[in-house]
Amino acid sequence: MYFASDNTGPVHPNVMAALARANEGYAMPYGADDIMAQVTTRIREIFEAPEAAVYLVATGTAANSISLATLTRPFDTIFCSPEAHIHEDECNAPEFYTGGAKLTLVPAEDAKMSSDALRNSIAGEETRGVHGPQRGPVSITNVTERGTVYSVAEIKALCDVAKGFDLPVHLDGARFANALVALGCTPAEMTWKAGVDVVSFGGTKNGCMGVEAVIFFDPKHAWEFELRRKRGGHLFSKNRFLAAQMLAYLEGDLWLDLARQANAANARLVRGLKQIDGIVFLHEPDANMSFAGWARAGHQRLHDAGAAYYIWEGQLDGDNPDEILTARMVADWSMSDENVDRFIALARG
Amino acid sequence: MYFASDNTGPVHPNVMAALARANEGYAMPYGADDIMAQVTTRIREIFEAPEAAVYLVATGTAANSISLATLTRPFDTIFCSPEAHIHEDECNAPEFYTGGAKLTLVPAEDAKMSSDALRNSIAGEETRGVHGPQRGPVSITNVTERGTVYSVAEIKALCDVAKGFDLPVHLDGARFANALVALGCTPAEMTWKAGVDVVSFGGTKNGCMGVEAVIFFDPKHAWEFELRRKRGGHLFSKNRFLAAQMLAYLEGDLWLDLARQANAANARLVRGLKQIDGIVFLHEPDANMSFAGWARAGHQRLHDAGAAYYIWEGQLDGDNPDEILTARMVADWSMSDENVDRFIALARG
Amino acid sequence: MYFASDNTGPVHPNVMAALARANEGYAMPYGADDIMAQVTTRIREIFEAPEAAVYLVATGTAANSISLATLTRPFDTIFCSPEAHIHEDECNAPEFYTGGAKLTLVPAEDAKMSSDALRNSIAGEETRGVHGPQRGPVSITNVTERGTVYSVAEIKALCDVAKGFDLPVHLDGARFANALVALGCTPAEMTWKAGVDVVSFGGTKNGCMGVEAVIFFDPKHAWEFELRRKRGGHLFSKNRFLAAQMLAYLEGDLWLDLARQANAANARLVRGLKQIDGIVFLHEPDANMSFAGWARAGHQRLHDAGAAYYIWEGQLDGDNPDEILTARMVADWSMSDENVDRFIALARG
Amino acid sequence: MYFASDNTGPVHPNVMAALARANEGYAMPYGADDIMAQVTTRIREIFEAPEAAVYLVATGTAANSISLATLTRPFDTIFCSPEAHIHEDECNAPEFYTGGAKLTLVPAEDAKMSSDALRNSIAGEETRGVHGPQRGPVSITNVTERGTVYSVAEIKALCDVAKGFDLPVHLDGARFANALVALGCTPAEMTWKAGVDVVSFGGTKNGCMGVEAVIFFDPKHAWEFELRRKRGGHLFSKNRFLAAQMLAYLEGDLWLDLARQANAANARLVRGLKQIDGIVFLHEPDANMSFAGWARAGHQRLHDAGAAYYIWEGQLDGDNPDEILTARMVADWSMSDENVDRFIALARG
Repeated sequence: MYFASDNTGPVHPNVMAALARANEGYAMPYGADDIMAQVTTRIREIFEAPEAAVYLVATGTAANSISLATLTRPFDTIFCSPEAHIHEDECNAPEFYTGGAKLTLVPAEDAKMSSDALRNSIAGEETRGVHGPQRGPVSITNVTERGTVYSVAEIKALCDVAKGFDLPVHLDGARFANALVALGCTPAEMTWKAGVDVVSFGGTKNGCMGVEAVIFFDPKHAWEFELRRKRGGHLFSKNRFLAAQMLAYLEGDLWLDLARQANAANARLVRGLKQIDGIVFLHEPDANMSFAGWARAGHQRLHDAGAAYYIWEGQLDGDNPDEILTARMVADWSMSDENVDRFIALARG
Repeated sequence: MYFASDNTGPVHPNVMAALARANEGYAMPYGADDIMAQVTTRIREIFEAPEAAVYLVATGTAANSISLATLTRPFDTIFCSPEAHIHEDECNAPEFYTGGAKLTLVPAEDAKMSSDALRNSIAGEETRGVHGPQRGPVSITNVTERGTVYSVAEIKALCDVAKGFDLPVHLDGARFANALVALGCTPAEMTWKAGVDVVSFGGTKNGCMGVEAVIFFDPKHAWEFELRRKRGGHLFSKNRFLAAQMLAYLEGDLWLDLARQANAANARLVRGLKQIDGIVFLHEPDANMSFAGWARAGHQRLHDAGAAYYIWEGQLDGDNPDEILTARMVADWSMSDENVDRFIALARG
Repeated sequence: MYFASDNTGPVHPNVMAALARANEGYAMPYGADDIMAQVTTRIREIFEAPEAAVYLVATGTAANSISLATLTRPFDTIFCSPEAHIHEDECNAPEFYTGGAKLTLVPAEDAKMSSDALRNSIAGEETRGVHGPQRGPVSITNVTERGTVYSVAEIKALCDVAKGFDLPVHLDGARFANALVALGCTPAEMTWKAGVDVVSFGGTKNGCMGVEAVIFFDPKHAWEFELRRKRGGHLFSKNRFLAAQMLAYLEGDLWLDLARQANAANARLVRGLKQIDGIVFLHEPDANMSFAGWARAGHQRLHDAGAAYYIWEGQLDGDNPDEILTARMVADWSMSDENVDRFIALARG
Repeated sequence: MYFASDNTGPVHPNVMAALARANEGYAMPYGADDIMAQVTTRIREIFEAPEAAVYLVATGTAANSISLATLTRPFDTIFCSPEAHIHEDECNAPEFYTGGAKLTLVPAEDAKMSSDALRNSIAGEETRGVHGPQRGPVSITNVTERGTVYSVAEIKALCDVAKGFDLPVHLDGARFANALVALGCTPAEMTWKAGVDVVSFGGTKNGCMGVEAVIFFDPKHAWEFELRRKRGGHLFSKNRFLAAQMLAYLEGDLWLDLARQANAANARLVRGLKQIDGIVFLHEPDANMSFAGWARAGHQRLHDAGAAYYIWEGQLDGDNPDEILTARMVADWSMSDENVDRFIALARG
């Protein structure tokens, strides 16, 4: 019953098999391998973006920080939600990679910025000329850090605001596939057709071992990104093993199948928990992550049975069995119906 | 009628005379001049801090950023109010000098953080271990950017919170003298006795040409500060001309006299404006800066007569003569009663 | 006949098998997995360093830059050879990770610094007090970038110089195993017993997929390293797959066996080429990399037959078949005797 | 007898008088003052560059570092001589302001790079694609740090090399006036007509209190420079006092007169010392700085009489009165013939 994160589960067998195949013989290093060329071709097809520049790195923090640094000057500020991974969970990596840019936190509901809030925040910055930070890129996360999903229209509205100020847009897609299957749209619709300029396209949380693609729809940024990736220590000599993961992930729409499984597991979990009296969800979960509160006694039962998830608000330790603690639960592709049902049964008590 | 800022007025004649005296003959460069030694002695006396390390730079942004960088690791976050000069008006200088630290904005009322708000903000950070930014220094401004003044007790309460988390405290004292005479306390009471570790001690806004002292009460940071100052290009070869300004500023308590004049000019202005119907102050002004709103027609009269101040909210241009626009007015030491009274008369109409 | 680098060959089957095993079930993320604990234990045993702090990253540039940044202040200079990978091949990564430190190039012969040259370089820096860069760590590479190997006595002599100035020592051990088996000493003798403070312990070039250990013999640097690793985007959520590689690499002394194979392949190559008239080695190769010159015609034959290696000096394209071009040849663990002999035969013509 | 540096002498009376004049009344802050407008106009005239962007800062390190940062990407390397002030005397300020760029030291004779040496250095960098630093600007110092002067033809030859690689050229003109009067050319000939893109135009060492102009001949860099200046804490609120210095410095060709006086004082010193047996100059001094060696006994006499200058090589303390110690002597505009002659007499013994 591992709902702690979608980074604790196993790598999908297809990805493991691809790594084994990629290991045959010799390959050119640093991204000049044949598999990388196939990855680029495949991603361009999937995104209907024949000019896109495509790169691989091994972590989401690297994908976000290096792509943002390519679009941000050190005296700029990046607009994002207060819950953004780049703000809360990257130990100042964006500030580091940009050489000291700032992050401006746009008020958000359930981790989603409205286009009005974004417009107000951007308009509010740089009324001070040289004294204040300058307006930099907008960064959106989809699936958000609270498990909600921006619709295509919402993404477009945010991008329109950004474009109105001539600012580029970055999409943190650590859970890109989960958002896509939740929306039922195409990758192009969720990105460049809506106005997104660069995507961190996650693989690690959805069945890969450790690989994220960075996709620039305008290739003019390509060489600078390559230099920044190398300078950050994120250019792999044996890039073929990143490429092999990504190719297997995309092959036969595996990435979409795995995201559907994860979302379905979460939906099953939500359905079950909602039927239990006293369990309240913080907001409607849209993909593979949900937040809900119930009494300590229920958490204690789950914990004693080995269920793994974060207590988001409150502390498991405590005297009052009725106190409400909030749980963050994330399902990955490998979550079985049995484990979901067992979790629900334990929560019910 | 120059109320635009306390950086538009003239340098006090004593300071000019000191520059002329300092110009006689040769002097050792880079801070090894005799005048600097006298400055250090005098500041230690004034602050009752015989061990303090004292340095001079020419701008407030340099004083703030370099002193903060000495106390902040690049993966830390600095706690300050949303109105802090270091956040709003330094074009990411703190992020630059710290190598990419973050600023956490603590909710504040009239630019003053409460100790509760500070405690909540600090407690809220770094619950994520290695993932989030680490807790760094607290930075307080007194006089605040909204013209309010923290009492000694309020400063102590903030420092106590910081010390409870083992965090150092920086005081942005661009208007240190104005706060001090408003409070009627000693420099030691407003700083190290309350728990402040380092002060940006302003001279520029209060009658100097361009000089700020950085005072570390614990000299262990001295050498690192010197290296960071040099690396930032803020070590003056002809340091004697910074030192001469500061020495003249401190001599015979000139600094306190000038601050009293500025505060008195502001008080006269506030008294006068308050007697006019329809003029509303955003909050009670404590020192030499005030914010108040009145109708466009009044602003237009002042503007036509050559009065200089910022329209803080709203735009001078506009059709409706009754619309309320908010002014920011700052008085420096050189403001005459005549000019204050003329301003009031014009506002009255 | 892949002699282009030791990063083009396959991953050893034991490492692949370990990855497959590590994939069973769920594991705690971010280094809290069980395999990581075993890696730490094993490295402490191998290095006879029960207190050592051990971390994994995926690239050599990350290992070098983050470990150096932990020991270097931004106003320092790092002492290294002009051929050092950190100077020539990391696109300013050390400058980036340190926040702007400098590298001072110590004259070296065949990429090896003498202790006299190091002493002179260190003595020469920082005679300017606050004006010049301050003395920072010494960085040694073993096997060097020219295929030579420092003896234990030579490392100790360099460390003694560093310690005389109270400076820490970093060892870039991208080819640590190849150096160790060349020297026939213990890991402790080549590192902390000689005075080394931190090691980049390479796995990628010697049979792994992409993993390097950073080993601090004094654990006081541990937490800062963790923060810098995270901030650089080098903390893997699925760290278990880095740990599995490293554990397999160390198990049953696989790492030493593979290095012996690589060194032996190189020795066979050198022996064969030396018997050919007109082939001149730049210097005596000590491990698995060698540099030698011969006529263009020979290079052309090899090239036409598909041999892969770098032309270090000169250009393959050219009219004069007798012009001497220098080759850099690197053997990895997977190089067969047949391929070595075929290479020699083609060079002979 | 102050020959320690040209930063120990007095400010010229005209500059002091201009500061007093500038102090009358109120002025717009942050460079919007009227005097600044006059400075810009005057510098454009002097340099025959009607489009040039002109900015003032207070130190040479700021002028060099911020102007270079505007032209350098963080993954670039700057080409300069090993004696360059930006390398030896700025405590890593260029590395700091550029966000971690590197400096490549071009072999130089008497601190002058030849165009061949520069070409070789540039050609040698970036043969490694993404792995090595990228080629960045060339930085020339005139007068050099060893007191030699590049001719216009030599500057042009260096710029031609830079332009051949499409690289910008920066001129560190801390002693711009001294070089100009030594060459007898126009400011335009020594800069943009020869191919220089940006100049640090020094005032501090030649009679000002602390002011340097940064001149971009192509104004496209203007706004970025302004942001970088502010972010570095080098934008003065009371900019009028920087501007007043610079305007007085340029008025009536004061700057050229003062440089002529300094160069003449140095020439007189050199003539006198050359007539003394046993005094050997390191190289022919071209402007206001010279390096020469003589016996310790002579240095001791000068030292006892209060002469101030640096012992460049060797130590004043020592037993052997015949040991040769090298002196660095710098004359500024205020050096009297009497003091020069007294120095010579003491050196003669």
